[in-house]
Amino acid sequence: MRTFKKVTIIGTGLIGGSIALGIKRKGLAAQVVGISRSRKTASLARKMRAVDLSSRSLTAAKGSELVIFAAPPAVILKLAPRLSKIIGRDCIVTDAASTKEEIVNKLGGIFKNFVGAHPLAGSEKKGINNATAGMFEDALCILTPVPKTNPAAFSKVKKLWVSLGSRLAFLSPSLHDKILSFVSHLPHIVSFSLMESIPSQYLKFAASGLKDATRLAASDPQLWQEIILSNKDNALSAIAILEKSLSKVKSALKKKDAVALARIFKSASCKREAWA
Amino acid sequence: MRTFKKVTIIGTGLIGGSIALGIKRKGLAAQVVGISRSRKTASLARKMRAVDLSSRSLTAAKGSELVIFAAPPAVILKLAPRLSKIIGRDCIVTDAASTKEEIVNKLGGIFKNFVGAHPLAGSEKKGINNATAGMFEDALCILTPVPKTNPAAFSKVKKLWVSLGSRLAFLSPSLHDKILSFVSHLPHIVSFSLMESIPSQYLKFAASGLKDATRLAASDPQLWQEIILSNKDNALSAIAILEKSLSKVKSALKKKDAVALARIFKSASCKREAWA
Repeated sequence: MRTFKKVTIIGTGLIGGSIALGIKRKGLAAQVVGISRSRKTASLARKMRAVDLSSRSLTAAKGSELVIFAAPPAVILKLAPRLSKIIGRDCIVTDAASTKEEIVNKLGGIFKNFVGAHPLAGSEKKGINNATAGMFEDALCILTPVPKTNPAAFSKVKKLWVSLGSRLAFLSPSLHDKILSFVSHLPHIVSFSLMESIPSQYLKFAASGLKDATRLAASDPQLWQEIILSNKDNALSAIAILEKSLSKVKSALKKKDAVALARIFKSASCKREAWA
Repeated sequence: MRTFKKVTIIGTGLIGGSIALGIKRKGLAAQVVGISRSRKTASLARKMRAVDLSSRSLTAAKGSELVIFAAPPAVILKLAPRLSKIIGRDCIVTDAASTKEEIVNKLGGIFKNFVGAHPLAGSEKKGINNATAGMFEDALCILTPVPKTNPAAFSKVKKLWVSLGSRLAFLSPSLHDKILSFVSHLPHIVSFSLMESIPSQYLKFAASGLKDATRLAASDPQLWQEIILSNKDNALSAIAILEKSLSKVKSALKKKDAVALARIFKSASCKREAWA
């Protein structure tokens, strides 16, 4: 069941490549075009049959019914004004970026039919070679409509994600960014910082617990620098709250207060168990 | 090939239960006795055939050739003087506790043949129902001999862990505790604190990354309070180093210094990749 004629995906890495593969598998578009800065990725996208056409030029988006930005926030903000001169005014534009407030503000001003989206999928692995058609199945996709969001465009973007198997949630861009600063950006910051704190020569004495606790530190550093910097104020607030939690642990340790320390750990442990 | 006549394990939870199962499977002892405070654990240890005899009384250790403490540090320190009145002077005594300095000091004063040990195995799950005979296969077991450690006892304890499939490492008790404060205690503190920092109502928007980053927060809070408190000074130093790493991230964010932030993340990411 074809929902779209021509769909262009800008950025065919892990997320963009998986969207492309999913669209192809479900037959959601007559034509899928992939745009990538990298010659290797562009070639791989074709070889994997993720796209019908690969291009390194934005002009390949011409005539699209839907354009999906699957690039870091800063790249999206840079390319959006150029894209607006290439695509038609009725083209639906959406994205998959990890922060939403700035993107929804700016792209909502550039494109008539912009709909902000953030699929909560992916892993610390990057690149189209790790992309899979089933990446978004049973994953949550957060859509961030604003009062001026076009209802028809919103409905089409909802349909895309439901067709890819995602569960949907709806948040304002600012609440999205606040929530993600806690559930995604803070864990990345903590993982990077924890990894950084451990003397290398001690790592051979680590067990699986440290591996899990620092898995996110294997994430693409450039991408995460861009994401977290694009959500600076929320990230700083989240760090401040973590620092308070650490201070409570320190204070209990300094006072040798076993009861207080057990209380902190137990509260965290119960929260983790209730969630998992 | 029987290495020991009677072996008694004090504390038949995840670790003690797994040691018992491993000893039984490898036929390392003529008799395995398990001592547990909990009636349920004592009964389960028998049902799982981890032990030949279960008891809730320390006196069951009488006549042992080897006694293994598999209990939290504080419990070991409490029971050791009482055990010394029950077992013979030549009995080898070892342990599996996560901190070593205080235990090696005190138990080395109480028992002629004490050998400190710390198998780096286990998980956030607890209890003998999660114990397995293969728990220590290919895991690292750190032994912490000191100048007065009896060579014959040391050799027998080494043989036990090699027979259970472990790789061995040797560290002084104080270096052990310093290293473990970084590779084990700090990640637990960070996981508990991270979990504590995240508003519960945001958790439904979390993806698998947060699950990994907080897996250790599902650990037994009482056990980890005891372990970390028994390594207070090292734990506080490790927290201070983590706080410095976090401060660098904060400072880069506040200055919107993309280059500095990417440098921190990249350094952590390279370290994680080189290790994994």
